[in-house]
Amino acid sequence: MNRTINRQIILSVVPKGKLSVHDFKMREAPIPIPNEGELLLNVRLVSLDAANRAWMHRETYRAAVEAGNVMDGYGIAEVVDSKATGFAPGDLVFTTTGWQDYIAVPASNVTKVERVDPLTHLLSAYGIAGRTAYHGLLSIGQPREGETVVVSAAAGSVGTFVGQIAKIKGCRVIGIAGSAEKCGWLVRELGFDDAVNYKEGDLTKALKAASPAGIDIYFDNVGGTTFEVCASQMKLHGRIVCCGAVSSYDGDLSDARPRVNPSQIVVKRLMVKGFIMSDFNAERNLALADLKAWVMAGRIKVIEDVCDGLESLPAALVGLLAGENRGKRMVRVQ
Amino acid sequence: MNRTINRQIILSVVPKGKLSVHDFKMREAPIPIPNEGELLLNVRLVSLDAANRAWMHRETYRAAVEAGNVMDGYGIAEVVDSKATGFAPGDLVFTTTGWQDYIAVPASNVTKVERVDPLTHLLSAYGIAGRTAYHGLLSIGQPREGETVVVSAAAGSVGTFVGQIAKIKGCRVIGIAGSAEKCGWLVRELGFDDAVNYKEGDLTKALKAASPAGIDIYFDNVGGTTFEVCASQMKLHGRIVCCGAVSSYDGDLSDARPRVNPSQIVVKRLMVKGFIMSDFNAERNLALADLKAWVMAGRIKVIEDVCDGLESLPAALVGLLAGENRGKRMVRVQ
Repeated sequence: MNRTINRQIILSVVPKGKLSVHDFKMREAPIPIPNEGELLLNVRLVSLDAANRAWMHRETYRAAVEAGNVMDGYGIAEVVDSKATGFAPGDLVFTTTGWQDYIAVPASNVTKVERVDPLTHLLSAYGIAGRTAYHGLLSIGQPREGETVVVSAAAGSVGTFVGQIAKIKGCRVIGIAGSAEKCGWLVRELGFDDAVNYKEGDLTKALKAASPAGIDIYFDNVGGTTFEVCASQMKLHGRIVCCGAVSSYDGDLSDARPRVNPSQIVVKRLMVKGFIMSDFNAERNLALADLKAWVMAGRIKVIEDVCDGLESLPAALVGLLAGENRGKRMVRVQ
Repeated sequence: MNRTINRQIILSVVPKGKLSVHDFKMREAPIPIPNEGELLLNVRLVSLDAANRAWMHRETYRAAVEAGNVMDGYGIAEVVDSKATGFAPGDLVFTTTGWQDYIAVPASNVTKVERVDPLTHLLSAYGIAGRTAYHGLLSIGQPREGETVVVSAAAGSVGTFVGQIAKIKGCRVIGIAGSAEKCGWLVRELGFDDAVNYKEGDLTKALKAASPAGIDIYFDNVGGTTFEVCASQMKLHGRIVCCGAVSSYDGDLSDARPRVNPSQIVVKRLMVKGFIMSDFNAERNLALADLKAWVMAGRIKVIEDVCDGLESLPAALVGLLAGENRGKRMVRVQ
């Protein structure tokens, strides 16, 4: 690692259709100098999230990523210089690091995190993936023992945790994934009760076969047709937890709007609710305590897909959007 | 009133398209004799509700109404003979009376109600309409002062109460109704801040003009396109209260499924939730106390549309589905 330059990956063009590695380019910049109240951070791990692609479309819960700027992303970084009280070199933090080696940020924008081994768990079980699954499933879905939980993108970062937490809560769990091979793995390795390949055959029929009585909780990571099919198979008092809509992120947005039936929402008293992880920051410690206990006890397998080197980020995101990862994908920068 | 016969209106055919008065016929039957534990009721008022039409399609939160049976409906009735403890002749009850002069029902199926003047308030402010508006808006919508509430079928039975209760809670209220004349009336007589005629021009544009910053609470009585347009204009943390979907009830159901955008549900953390009044029976007394206080204080105008005579029921329901009523429509049987 060259300590005099800051490698940065720029989004050189906002893609109209599918994202490509050619939409990015690497540049070199000086290492920034932190101002009073800021920290200079050395980026260790960058998280790949389907939402990264959604940020390119427009302002969401954050500003849009614009062409010519450093591509944004969450990450784990180490403090190398502190101009803020309460932080010292060597401290680890979670923040929006962007795709680069170094960043200077106000201390108020970071969350200090405990060093764990392996460090990667800070982005998987004890980070974005685990906490998103935990809060979404438990606080919004409110699963009860014996209920049926369906989760889409089940082999993905959030999905693997949702399914395993639902099993811990005594639910019957059905995963939706994009290959027979992923489906087999979910059942065999992660203890899902069943899994359905949405790319093969009729999803409606497959879900009805997997759960004839319907769905109590649908944890939606994908939107689109899968949302529509699951929404139509909800049971009385069913809950749809809206976590993401990856089917609509990579490309144009026009066909991304599934249909719902308001009459059935009334009759079945369904609830549909969206959230993002940071809505539950007040409950972070509770979530981490539970997640650590479950990981330590071997009740949750932490599935990670770690790529190496800052330069691998564009391909890692393109591949994530195509569904090539299993579990939490991230890039080890250095 | 002939005390020896029981006039009944039968649903003679389950309509495929729009409901017509010719789908009903009157018949005469003997007055039923109550068994042990039952009450013989003399029906006084029958409620007309858009849901009556939905019941014909299929099982909902209750069994379907089938051809050849007495048309079902909620009503207020007087006990004329009691074979159950706790009830005496002269008591008033709310129950599913059906469209007839007399019915014998198990006492466990009725709710005793206090006699008020006028009696019609038992179906409007202190009955289905008022309580549906109260529980849906307050328990599900949870309005805060200064928020913008949009309600569809605003001049209808539930809508007139939703708008007035929202005003009491300090909200800005926009009604959606089906004529310029109704819209003017909502603003002039019921204190709505604005009203939009969904039959004229572009609903999206009209709502944006009425509420440029978007909608905090959408109280949906209609489903369909109106649902879709309102759902697309929700603000951060917006709530959609699903109370009914009258646009989908009268006719075939195939085009009744509006689109939603799961990605926006996440980004804005929207909640969509369905309910029926009886979900909130435990809070009935609280609702009635508030509603009575507001009516007595003149803060809620009770809008009723009362038709006379059992024989007027079919036309009253057909007209309700066409939007001809203002406020709570009911039929005074005798």
